[in-house]
Amino acid sequence: MRASLVAAAFQLFLERGYEQTTVDDIVALAGVGRRSFFRYFPSKEDVVFPDHEGCLAEMTAFLGDSGPTDEPVARVCDAARLVLRMYAENPTFSVQRHRLTRKVPGLRTYELSMVWRYERALAAYLRGRFAGRRDGTLRADVIAAAVVAAHNNGLRSWLRSDGRSDATAEVDHALAHVQGIFGPDQAPGGPAQQAADEGAGEGRNGGRDDEDVVVVVSRRGAPLWRVVQEIETTLGRDAD
Amino acid sequence: MRASLVAAAFQLFLERGYEQTTVDDIVALAGVGRRSFFRYFPSKEDVVFPDHEGCLAEMTAFLGDSGPTDEPVARVCDAARLVLRMYAENPTFSVQRHRLTRKVPGLRTYELSMVWRYERALAAYLRGRFAGRRDGTLRADVIAAAVVAAHNNGLRSWLRSDGRSDATAEVDHALAHVQGIFGPDQAPGGPAQQAADEGAGEGRNGGRDDEDVVVVVSRRGAPLWRVVQEIETTLGRDAD
Repeated sequence: MRASLVAAAFQLFLERGYEQTTVDDIVALAGVGRRSFFRYFPSKEDVVFPDHEGCLAEMTAFLGDSGPTDEPVARVCDAARLVLRMYAENPTFSVQRHRLTRKVPGLRTYELSMVWRYERALAAYLRGRFAGRRDGTLRADVIAAAVVAAHNNGLRSWLRSDGRSDATAEVDHALAHVQGIFGPDQAPGGPAQQAADEGAGEGRNGGRDDEDVVVVVSRRGAPLWRVVQEIETTLGRDAD
Repeated sequence: MRASLVAAAFQLFLERGYEQTTVDDIVALAGVGRRSFFRYFPSKEDVVFPDHEGCLAEMTAFLGDSGPTDEPVARVCDAARLVLRMYAENPTFSVQRHRLTRKVPGLRTYELSMVWRYERALAAYLRGRFAGRRDGTLRADVIAAAVVAAHNNGLRSWLRSDGRSDATAEVDHALAHVQGIFGPDQAPGGPAQQAADEGAGEGRNGGRDDEDVVVVVSRRGAPLWRVVQEIETTLGRDAD
């Protein structure tokens, strides 16, 4: 029933245009009553994005199942991949919808609110993981936004290729870029900020217990002995 | 005229609620005709955000005026500050609107589309600046999203304080966080990615001509001589 309503709706959207199609048209083609439509979809806009609510629920459950040993940035990247999977499961539908969404401002707005809700789900998880950390909330919001932007960059590349490129490869590449910036081998505020933090009482590694790398930032003109001294100091402090 | 329409609208929104106020109510209180309202505002939603279109135009002009020596991340942070200035110029109005926007889903959606347009303006500028760079488009999208998220994190802190905290300090702090991650002293993909890039033909500093720092990432357990050797190799390669 639900699937046949979606199929009927899309057939009409493509034939007549989104604005010109009414819910009555959709139910007539699907051979069901109006009440059946509204049992599944609160509005005509919702039939365009039939799987987003389910995907958001899945993402929330996935993040809720996380343990303390899950690396937070990798975890939100994996959560974002759930959205990609939903798109990639039905390439023809996803590409058609993408074209429709670009033409109809109301659908674009609807999509933006969905993206916002995904982003807030990721940010809420990260805020929990970064709780008590200096700038934890800020960092959570920035990483969530960066992950969503990267995911959508990869997803759009795939959609613009009419589903011909490799969706997973596109998104994996984009998410690896973000993990390279924020992942476990990166300092909380980038290396320069980390180096500037030495008096902040959190230690050289920004208070992260799972740190296993040393990042040294040095002016190119600095003499080598100065750089080595800096490393020794850093290692000494971290060994405390 | 425009200002008095905004004032009348907000007086009614606060007294009766947004949904319960019609454009007719607003023009009656302001003492003008309906046509005057629609000359300034395409819809009732637009009167809630009377300055966003002007601010977006100002941002676009500001970014268009950039020169090749402007550091791109600093430039988009300054562009984001134009939005803050608009909010901070009228704290009472901004705080009232924030409360209203949180209660009315249609306004929340409107605001999300404005945020999206700001983000696309920043991304378009960055895409131009990063043109021809590996992952330039991806990097532009990620930085634009991070800048917007940081700006909004600072802005929301200020709005939640009912305009009592220091708006500029909140947003400056948040934007400094992003500049610490993506600014000129940071490698394009973070230090680990940079270190992994050595065979990529762009040199150790990721192909950036204005690089003046050396970033070394080392496992904590590595012996000191190994780290020094790594630095020597890096400096030697960069001096080529």
